Parts: sequence; C-alpha cells; structure tokens
Amino acid sequence: MKKTISQTIPTDFERIFHPQNIAIIGVSAKDGGTGFGNGMFRALKAMGFEGKIFPVNPKGGNLDELQIYKQVEDIPEKVDFAIITVAAKLVPEVLEGCRQKGIEGAQILSSGFSELGTQAGKELENKIQQIAAAGIRVVGPNCFGIYCPKSGLTLLPGPDLSRQTGSVAFLSQSGGMAIDLAHIGKWMGIRFSKVVSFGNGADLRETELLQYLADDPETKVISMYIEGIKDGDAFFESIKYTIKKKPVIVYKGGLSQAGQRTVASHTASMGGSRVIWQSVLKQVNAISVQDLNELAQAALAFSLLPSGIFKNISVIGGGGALGVSACDAAEALGIEIPPFSTEQQESIGKFLPKPGSSAINPIDVANPFVSPQALKEILLQAAKDSRVDLQIIVSLLYHYKVMATAMGLKVAEVAPFRELADAIRDVVKTTGKPVVVVLPNPKKGLDDLDITEMLVLARREFLERGLPVFDELPDALRAIGHVNGYFGQRNANNE
Amino acid sequence: MKKTISQTIPTDFERIFHPQNIAIIGVSAKDGGTGFGNGMFRALKAMGFEGKIFPVNPKGGNLDELQIYKQVEDIPEKVDFAIITVAAKLVPEVLEGCRQKGIEGAQILSSGFSELGTQAGKELENKIQQIAAAGIRVVGPNCFGIYCPKSGLTLLPGPDLSRQTGSVAFLSQSGGMAIDLAHIGKWMGIRFSKVVSFGNGADLRETELLQYLADDPETKVISMYIEGIKDGDAFFESIKYTIKKKPVIVYKGGLSQAGQRTVASHTASMGGSRVIWQSVLKQVNAISVQDLNELAQAALAFSLLPSGIFKNISVIGGGGALGVSACDAAEALGIEIPPFSTEQQESIGKFLPKPGSSAINPIDVANPFVSPQALKEILLQAAKDSRVDLQIIVSLLYHYKVMATAMGLKVAEVAPFRELADAIRDVVKTTGKPVVVVLPNPKKGLDDLDITEMLVLARREFLERGLPVFDELPDALRAIGHVNGYFGQRNANNE
Repeated sequence: MKKTISQTIPTDFERIFHPQNIAIIGVSAKDGGTGFGNGMFRALKAMGFEGKIFPVNPKGGNLDELQIYKQVEDIPEKVDFAIITVAAKLVPEVLEGCRQKGIEGAQILSSGFSELGTQAGKELENKIQQIAAAGIRVVGPNCFGIYCPKSGLTLLPGPDLSRQTGSVAFLSQSGGMAIDLAHIGKWMGIRFSKVVSFGNGADLRETELLQYLADDPETKVISMYIEGIKDGDAFFESIKYTIKKKPVIVYKGGLSQAGQRTVASHTASMGGSRVIWQSVLKQVNAISVQDLNELAQAALAFSLLPSGIFKNISVIGGGGALGVSACDAAEALGIEIPPFSTEQQESIGKFLPKPGSSAINPIDVANPFVSPQALKEILLQAAKDSRVDLQIIVSLLYHYKVMATAMGLKVAEVAPFRELADAIRDVVKTTGKPVVVVLPNPKKGLDDLDITEMLVLARREFLERGLPVFDELPDALRAIGHVNGYFGQRNANNE
Repeated sequence: MKKTISQTIPTDFERIFHPQNIAIIGVSAKDGGTGFGNGMFRALKAMGFEGKIFPVNPKGGNLDELQIYKQVEDIPEKVDFAIITVAAKLVPEVLEGCRQKGIEGAQILSSGFSELGTQAGKELENKIQQIAAAGIRVVGPNCFGIYCPKSGLTLLPGPDLSRQTGSVAFLSQSGGMAIDLAHIGKWMGIRFSKVVSFGNGADLRETELLQYLADDPETKVISMYIEGIKDGDAFFESIKYTIKKKPVIVYKGGLSQAGQRTVASHTASMGGSRVIWQSVLKQVNAISVQDLNELAQAALAFSLLPSGIFKNISVIGGGGALGVSACDAAEALGIEIPPFSTEQQESIGKFLPKPGSSAINPIDVANPFVSPQALKEILLQAAKDSRVDLQIIVSLLYHYKVMATAMGLKVAEVAPFRELADAIRDVVKTTGKPVVVVLPNPKKGLDDLDITEMLVLARREFLERGLPVFDELPDALRAIGHVNGYFGQRNANNE
C-alpha cells in the first residue's frame, strides 16, 4: 500500500471519501476541548460516522472512552484517512508519519502556510507538497476538509449536516463557502455526493478533483467555488472533458482588482482577469454564477429537473403583477410563456374563480385560496398545450395566515401544503412535464414566525416528492435558464 | 365642499389620507362576511383606525353594533373618504352618491372594468372618470386602496400592517405589490408615509400622485411600481420635478413583449418599450430596479442612511471568501474597499484573533465569536481612515447555534445581538459614519428555526437603533450603490 510517487500509483479515492477508519491528530484529552481536533471528533460522532476513530496526541490519555495514541504509527490497525489539526510547524512531521503508516489521504485543517504570504509559510507548504508527492494525498492545508454524507465525513464545524446522499458535488477553495453550501443544501433540498474544501490546495485541488468527479458515478452535477487556479491549461482541459459528461457550475471569486488582493491573503492564489475567465467559462459551456445563492439554485435545478431544455413554460400564480414580472424575467433568459389558445383558456377557465382571474398564460388564479384539487386540474389543462415543457406554480400559501388567525389556529394547521404537494406530484406523473414550485414569503416579522415554520414544512413535503422549491420566481427562472443554457449548448455541439 | 370639476378646485389630500371618518359601501350584516367590504371593516378595526366608520348597504341592518346605512346620503355626518366594494355595475351610482354627499375621495376595490378588455368594462370605467371629473377623487378601480400608518388606513387585505409612520411612499399599479411591500417593510424596517395601490388609475394615478408626494413633507423617499403610464410627457415632467427634491425608485413591469400582453389584462395599461423606459429613467436620475426586493432594499437604504455618497467603505466580516465576494460586488458598483495603511492594520490587528484574521480591508475577523466589544474597537479603528465613508459589518450570528446546542440553550439566549447593536450604535455616534449590518443565514431548516427567530429579534434591535439590516452582502452593496448613484448625479447637476 505504501507509495513513493503519487503520480505513478493511482489514488484510491474510495479510501479517502469512504474511509473504514480515521485518525484525528491533534485532539486533547479534555472532553469539552475547543480545538479543531476535538471539534471534528464530536462532529463525526454526531454525524454517526460508522467506522473507527483513532484519536492521536503525543500526550496520550483517553477521550470519550477511547485510547489516545501518541502517534499514528502506534495505531494497531490499518488507517484509511487522517484529519490533521496540529499547529502548522508540526504538520510536516505528522503528515510524514501518516504517509509511512500507509494512510491514503489526509486533510490538514490547520492554517499558517502560504496564505500568510511569508517565506516561512511558503516553506512549510513546500514540505507538505514533497511529502504528498512521496505517497499520500493531501486536502488543504487551511481548509474545512471533506463532507461525504454516504460515509459520514463532515466539514469543520459541521456536526449537523445531512446524511442523505445525492448527486451534487462541490469543490471549494473557501471553507466558509463549503460549510455554507452544505447548510443551504440541507433545507433547500440539494443532496451531495461529495463536498471538498481544499483551501490552499497544496496537493489535491481543482483540476485533479474535477477529473475524479467527471468519472464518479455518484456525481451528476458539479459545482465549484474557485479563487485562483494553479495550472490554467490543465484546468481548461479537465473542465472541457468533464462538461461533455455533466454540468459544471462555476462561481469564480476574485475577479475584481480588490478581490484579487483579498484572494492572495485568503488562499494564496492568483485570481486571473475577469475577461479571460468569462470567455473561458463561456467557451467550455460552464455554468457561470455570481454568488453562492445562484450556485445553490442552479445545483438544485440540475439535480431535480430531468436533463433537457425547457424553452416554453406555463406559469400559474396569484396576482397580475406576478405574471408581468414572470414574463419580464423569462424574456431576458430566452424562456417563452406562450399564450394559450382560446379553446384551452376556456378549459382552464372552468377551474378558475371569477372575476379577476386570467387563463392566458401566465395563469392568474386571482385568489390565494384556490383548492389544491382545482390547481391540479389547472396544471393538467395547461400541460395539454404541446409547447409547454415545464410548469411553474407560485403558491402564496402565506395568505392562509389571515384565515388561520380568524380561526384561532396556527397557519400550518390551515394551509393545505401536503394536499398541494400530492396534487403536483400527480400532475408530474400524469403529464411527464416537470413542475417547479415557488413559495414567496413577504411576512417575516416576529408576529409571523409561524408562516416561516409552515413554509419550511411545506418545502420539505414538496422536496420529498422530488419537486424543486424556490423562494422567488426570478430565482426559479434563472436556475431553469442555466439548465437550458447548458443542455442547449451540448445539443448544438452534438455532445 | 362640493366641486364641479376636480381640476379647478385643489384636491384636499389631507381628507383622503387622514380622514376623520370613512364610509364602507358594500358590507353585509353578517359578522363573518367574507366580502371585501367586511374584510376592510375588520381590517380598519384591527389597525385601530381612530375615526368613525359608517357601513353602508341598501339592505340596512347592523354590523358589530353599528347601524348599516342604506345609502351614503343617509349618513348624518360629514364623510371624508369612502371605500367602495360593490359589484362593478353598481359602482357609478354609488360613486355619484359619494360625490353628492361631498366626500373628498373614494377608493374602488371592485374589479370588472377596463382590465377585462371588454367594451362594457371600458364604458363603466368612463362613467367613473366622468363622475370623478365632476368633483370626487378616485383611487382605483381594481386596486387594494390606500395604506397610511399615521391615520390607520390599510390596504386590502391588511389587518396586520405596521402603524409606525415613516418617510417612504409607494405608488403601485399592482395591489399585490402594494400589500407585499407593506408586509416586507414591516420586518425589514421600511416605515411608510403613504402607500397607494391605484390599480386601473381611472382618476388619480402616477403623475398627479407623484406631484403630490414631491411636496409632501412626510415623504422623503418615493418608490413606484408602474406597468404603464397614461401621459408620458406629463409623467416625465413630474418625475423630473420630483427627483430634484427627493429620490424616486422605479420598478417598471411589462418591459418584455409577453409582459406587455399581461399588463393589458392586469391594469389595462400600455407598457412601453424597454429601450425608451431605460433611457428616460436614466435621463431623469430615477433609481431603476428590477424587482420588488431590490426596490425594498433601496428604499431601506435611502430612508436610513444620511443623504450623501459612500464611495469608500470598510467591510468587517468573517471568512476570507466573504471579503473576496465583497470586493467583486463593490467594484461592479463603483464602490472602493481601500486597503488600510500598515500602521492602521496594526492598530486594528490588536483586536483581532490570531491566526487566520486579516486587517487589510475587508477585515476578516476569522472567528464568529469575536465579542461585540472587540468588534466595536475594530469599527472605531477602521473609521479612522479618513477615506472611509461608511462601514459594513457582516455578522455571522448563526454560528452561535453550535455553542447554544452544546450549552443546552436556545440560540437567542446565547448570541449577543443586543450588545452588538449597542456597540454599533455607539460607533455611529462616535464616528459620524453610518454602519450597515448584514445578517446572513445559511441554516433555515426545521432543526434551525430558532436561528430564524433569533435573527428576527436581532434585526429588530438593530433597526430600533437606526441601523439598516440586509440578509446578504450583495444586497447591501447594491442598495448603497443606488444611494451613491442618485446623490452623485444630483451633485453633478448642482442640484
């Protein structure tokens, strides 16, 4: 198992992402220890990591009834993966011990390396690179590590991430972005295959990880936060190869001058110019996003919508202005909301309240209390237009608060979100056309926290039925626009 | 008091926005009546409207111990304002009764007029215009009416809007947008002088209302949602006149082709082309926004920030990527985040945890648990750079959840948001430089509802100290960019 040069022996990523056991180097014997090592120990326990954990500290002792080994070499079993949290200057020695033990990979959470911009920091990082090249793969340093729901690996400080596995991967130079997206994904319904915060990327980084994910059967959608890349040509080749197989969503930080300055002190990378990045990303058909929310929304759409182009859509909502803004936002994205024929308007109109409603498309139900059963019929009728590729329903469930208050009940007891979720699932099954749900909430004050709670419950019901949910209509349209852009270009390239 | 032609006798807007008493025409004698009339009756009661309310219905009877008059003419007192909720075909007769009674203004909530696109609908609306011209001002039809926190007037269906009065006005062709913004403003801290949903705008509409607000001492910031305008030249003159006095934020709906089609069926307006609108809005120095959230955020910034230009800012946050994205977003808006001198970095550095922090600007505190006292010192030091016009603090209070869980407490009991609000208020007082607060929350799942609750409480504390709060850093920067754009152009014009 021992290797001399990692480039010559293929990396066993299985041992890194799904380790049977883990050494955590840098725990203290104190139960409530506040260091990274103890934090990771507690986080892995909380996540229910099923493998063995071997705590390591030169002082020895016990932690949570486990023996603390003085060095990794003393661990009596084979170890797949190591989490290193000791002070920067101690890292090379510890990492070399891991390599000699035959550990496949290590994540170094410690900071104090090249990101300091000092000679000493750079030299320490060089040492890590030399040890890695001699036969151990390194994630970090200056990172939050790996999150893999299937194996129970988790980011720092992530004791409360989801164990539900899924198809979205995220590669991030920033630990903050990685943990934020993991949390956002939890409630938004993004299920992850692998999330890697690689920080300074002394060894494993964007290009090689992308190559790995390109052929990873667990991963269908790849998203990335990059501040700077190490080898532009290799990255370009890698992303081109990958994008022919699956979508790659890229959030590039540090495109401004001040941003590049900040990148240097954050992850010791060179940012690269805005013009070059934008043209390269466009050229390779990457999905380029401007912030983490846009990335999350695109990832959700790619993971829950079928592969394809949704050029013509129907929009069902309440309120005329909603329809107007839907049309405005759609046009800017090249999405059409085609008006229905008079005949079809009549068949839709049978299920609409009068007056004030409109069946043209966007369909204005004019009243937030239209029943799930009627909405189901409206969606079924709208789907009969052969042009319609996808439907969006904007449900103003928050309006049930007024009704709930009048009845002396909580809004979650009154709003028929479960019935609506069932109805929409049935529509998707019957029509074969996806439905995207939008759940806006203008009422977020102290008096209306029960609305927030109801909408969290409602979102869960929709997600359990495979229906993507967005907070705002423009977000939903933008995400669909990204799906169209990617598959449209692939079709044009005959890929 | 009776008028023959409204144009020749000035409108007494005081009687319309702050009526001493109101007639509601179209209530039913049923206590739980679900029509608009009974809804408005309950809403005005819930809002604590202090004047008298006279319910009106030809059938008579009683409502909530009040006599229902058979017609407005029977009301034994002078009436300032009427709310008309009867079926469209009955509206002209009822409105004429109001005019003869000497009522100054009426809002017609009923729909079924020109927005139907039918000859009958147009004729009914023409009748309303003729009666209005003969001496009564009309808001609507097909609208949600007037919200005035000072007088207690409220929109349909708004029993739960804030009674706190403020400096922001909103004119909206869409009732949905009006009620949504009123609700958003309640928790976001936007306090309104007047909100008018004018629907089809048969009589009072964008141009004349804008002229009124231009000279309204209660209004310092005007925002508008327009679908189409009636008289382009008059509107152009009115907005030019107004913008010399106060900012006007414009959200123009229906700029797309499909949007224009939808506008026609929503408020019977002509949309106008995207190019013309964009150039006109730019020419008159209007603040042009793309959706209601952007409008709300701009209104908040204009109402809580001092008048001026904030070209150079400091950003204090946690996590390197946050600083990178701050710089990227700022550059696109022409906002600078100037790096501090080495000397100043040292004085800031004294209050930063080591390692991983950075005092360059953006300041990375690297740890979400830096105390409010230390953050206060950091803000005070950063403000000493004479270039800094404004500071943004991104507070990751949600991280206290992990600490709270470990302590068995709710996060609101642990996160020091009150102390932080006090500290920042002191900084603003000492330095004379505004501070904008950003409170992101990536954790919105069922397990983390206490974080949402804590942040709602925190937001309230900040707002009570006059500190604007945004959910996301790009939102805050964009809103500041709008303030800079408006006052920058005013300065350039020597206005």
